[in-house]
Order: sequence, then structure tokens, then C-alpha cells
Amino acid sequence: MADYIEGKRPVIEALRTHVPISELLVADNLQRDGLVEDILRKARQTNTPVKTVPRRDLDKRSERGSHQGVMAQTKPFEYVSLQAILDAAQHRAQENGGAALVVLLDHITDAGNLGAIVRSAEAAGASGIVLPNKRAARVGAATYKSSAGAVAHVNISQVANIAQTIERLKKEGYWVAGASEQAQEVVWDANLKGRIALVLGSEGEGLARLTQESCDFLVKLPQVGRVASLNVAQAATACMYEWVRQNRPGQ
Amino acid sequence: MADYIEGKRPVIEALRTHVPISELLVADNLQRDGLVEDILRKARQTNTPVKTVPRRDLDKRSERGSHQGVMAQTKPFEYVSLQAILDAAQHRAQENGGAALVVLLDHITDAGNLGAIVRSAEAAGASGIVLPNKRAARVGAATYKSSAGAVAHVNISQVANIAQTIERLKKEGYWVAGASEQAQEVVWDANLKGRIALVLGSEGEGLARLTQESCDFLVKLPQVGRVASLNVAQAATACMYEWVRQNRPGQ
Repeated sequence: MADYIEGKRPVIEALRTHVPISELLVADNLQRDGLVEDILRKARQTNTPVKTVPRRDLDKRSERGSHQGVMAQTKPFEYVSLQAILDAAQHRAQENGGAALVVLLDHITDAGNLGAIVRSAEAAGASGIVLPNKRAARVGAATYKSSAGAVAHVNISQVANIAQTIERLKKEGYWVAGASEQAQEVVWDANLKGRIALVLGSEGEGLARLTQESCDFLVKLPQVGRVASLNVAQAATACMYEWVRQNRPGQ
Repeated sequence: MADYIEGKRPVIEALRTHVPISELLVADNLQRDGLVEDILRKARQTNTPVKTVPRRDLDKRSERGSHQGVMAQTKPFEYVSLQAILDAAQHRAQENGGAALVVLLDHITDAGNLGAIVRSAEAAGASGIVLPNKRAARVGAATYKSSAGAVAHVNISQVANIAQTIERLKKEGYWVAGASEQAQEVVWDANLKGRIALVLGSEGEGLARLTQESCDFLVKLPQVGRVASLNVAQAATACMYEWVRQNRPGQ
């Protein structure tokens, strides 16, 4: 997560969307306009400490020079271990007729897409999301906004290696489904009952070759468009909800 | 659509994502840096006229004062008539076992959501999208980006009144399904075979009361999340793909 959010509107937005903030920094010569009053009120409401500092301290910390006299220091996001996700999934499976869903993102790079997937994953009842710890979007302030706050309620784990994580999930009894436009099978014909790990590739490249080969099977959504393919967050949502459909009681 | 896109990076992005541009305006005293060279190269490649003007002309046209010496005048988006969408849907139904999909957006206000829905609608094979002509997102430069260009290949109509449009669609033989969290029925139990009009409500409020009452039936996606509900574009995609699922050959 970015250490600092800078500027009046971004800071208000961060307070509003419950980005965890350790401290607000306010310039000693800050003019009290309506936005500043809003920020200070929100800070009181959320028990966020406010520290008045010389403006040059903000200048030093600012990456973009757009702090407008206000910066918020964010707390680092608390990732969980893969084991914690597996435990949550196990618990869920026991309550849910044996069904659990873990979502693996193979190098999603857009923070907006990450947030959108987190939001849908929470709504669909996924037990966790696994991200690579390099060359991929991380959970930052933007993820709180694009997930509409859901990021605070979803288990997210960072791992060194997605292919190894897939092998681990297989050993734990998961069927691993990779979403790929090259799949032979449409998602509705695949068996998504029970414990499923759904793997989604990056925006530009899709699944890496090694990741794709590690999956038990590949699934796709039929697409008839002339120009665009489905956005990865949209494809993720449709696939997650297909898992919900196949696992609902009475199916 | 906004008349002008201003600033070097926004203009490059617009050229890259095929926003229809009638003319580039370039300040007479513009410094030729790498970005400017990129813009001029892209303009040549796309046969976009470039006009050199006094910088004060740009200052006068600029809304945000961030033109950096470069502005692009956009062409207005060409909306189609509702009849054109019905004709396209008719044609599609004939080729597609009687199935056609029209999507009505009841006051979606976020340009990113509009673009995301357009992108998914193209992928799913919807015949058109209907928007209210007031208090709702319009197709602008942002829609080209958020739809990944799909907006240029989807029929989009603006209407004065969504409830009247629903009545018209019913007379044309459509079943009108409203997506609402208040629905009794989950979307998978609804009959979406044949000609379907799918109605989605605004981000904050959902379907307007009158719109909801006009629908033949309401559908929902089950949601188990504690904080967030599904984003409207994600819900739209899942519902559109349920229409695809129910209408694929052999079902």
C-alpha cells in the first residue's frame, strides 16, 4: 500500500471508504476551508489522530507535490497466509455442502480490476484471493475504493509462486479451473461443484503458460464481440457466479 | 460527449483508444518533447487533421486549464434510434433461435460502469443498450476507454422515458426482467429464453419504483457479502451471461 495519500479530496475519499489510516498530517499554515473542515470532522468521527506539522515536512514526504497541506499515512494492508484462506475455506465447505471457492489472480496489474474482483468475490462468498507478491497489483488505497470497502472483509494472501500454490491446492482436494479464451469447454459445461480454485490471468496476456498447464481444466465464457474481449473482472464475476449456481442447495 | 480532450497524455490515450476526433489543436509555441512527437505520429497514422493555433485559443477553449498546448476536438457520439436496436435484435433473433437481448440502464451515472457494461454487452452479443437522455452517464471519451473501444461497435440509444420504453418493448414481444436485490427469484430460476430486455438500476438507488413496476419480473443474484453489494456492471455481466447460457444451442 502507498504510505501516503495526499490532497484534500483523496484524503476525504480515503476516510469515507475506510482506508485504514494511522495518522493525518496537516500543514501548520493550512487555510480552514470547507473541505478541510470535512476532513477534520471525519477524522474525529473515526478517531484518526491528526498531527500539525510544518508544511515543508509534507513537501518532503509528498511524491506528487499535490498534498494541498493534507496527507494521510496509511496502515499497511494485512495479508493473511495461504493456510488461513484454506482454513476459512474448510470452515465454509462444512457449512456449505462441501463447496468452497478460492480465487487466484495470475498477475492482474490494474488496481481497479483487483478491487472489482475483490468486491464480487465477497458478494459471491469466495473464501479468499491469492495474489503473486511481484509484478502484480497490490492492495492499496485504490483497492478500498474500487472494492467499495470489501477489501477489508476478504482474506487476501500474497504468494511467491502461483504454479506452486496451484499444486498445493490440488493436494488439499481442490479442482483447479483456469479461465482462458483458449479453453475448449464453456464454463457452464464444467463441473464446478465442491472445492474449486478459479485462476484468472493478467489483463494483457491471460494465464501464463506454466499456470495454464498446472490447471486441472480450462473454462471460457463464449464471446461474440468484434473488438473487445471481456474485462478480467467481469469474466471473474461471471465464473464465480457459475460456481455459486452449481453449488446452491438443491442442485 | 465532451467537446474537447485536453492535455498530452489524455490526448494520446484518446488517439490510442480510437475516440473519434475531428481535429487536433496544437499551440504555436509548443515545445516538441517525446509525448508531442507521439501525438503527432498517432495523428498522422489515423489521418487526424492537426491545426496550429495561438496558445490563447486553447486557453479560451480549455475547461480545466490543463491543455499543455494540446487539445483534441471530439466528434459527437452517434446514438441510434430505439427502432434501430429493435431491428438489429430482430435480425439477431432470426439467426439465433429466436433469442435477442436489449439492455436498459435506468440512470447509471458512472462513466466507468457504462463503459464496462458496453464492453460486456458486446462480448455477450446484446443487440443494443438504451439510456435515459437526462440524469445519466452519456457516451463520452471516458466510455471509449472503459469499454476498451467496444462502444464504437454497440448500438446505443437515448430515450426520454425508460418506463415508456419498457411498454414499447413488451408490445414488441420482449419479456422485461429487472435486476433488483429485492427480487424474490434468483436469475437462474427465471426464464430468460428468447427476447429479453434486461433493466439495471442506478449505482446508488437501484431501479426506480416506476421502472420496477413496469418490469414483467425481477431477478437477483444471491449475495453473501457483509459490506458491499455487487457493482452494477458486474451484476449486468452475470445476468447477460445467464441470458447467453439459457439461449445457447441445445438448451
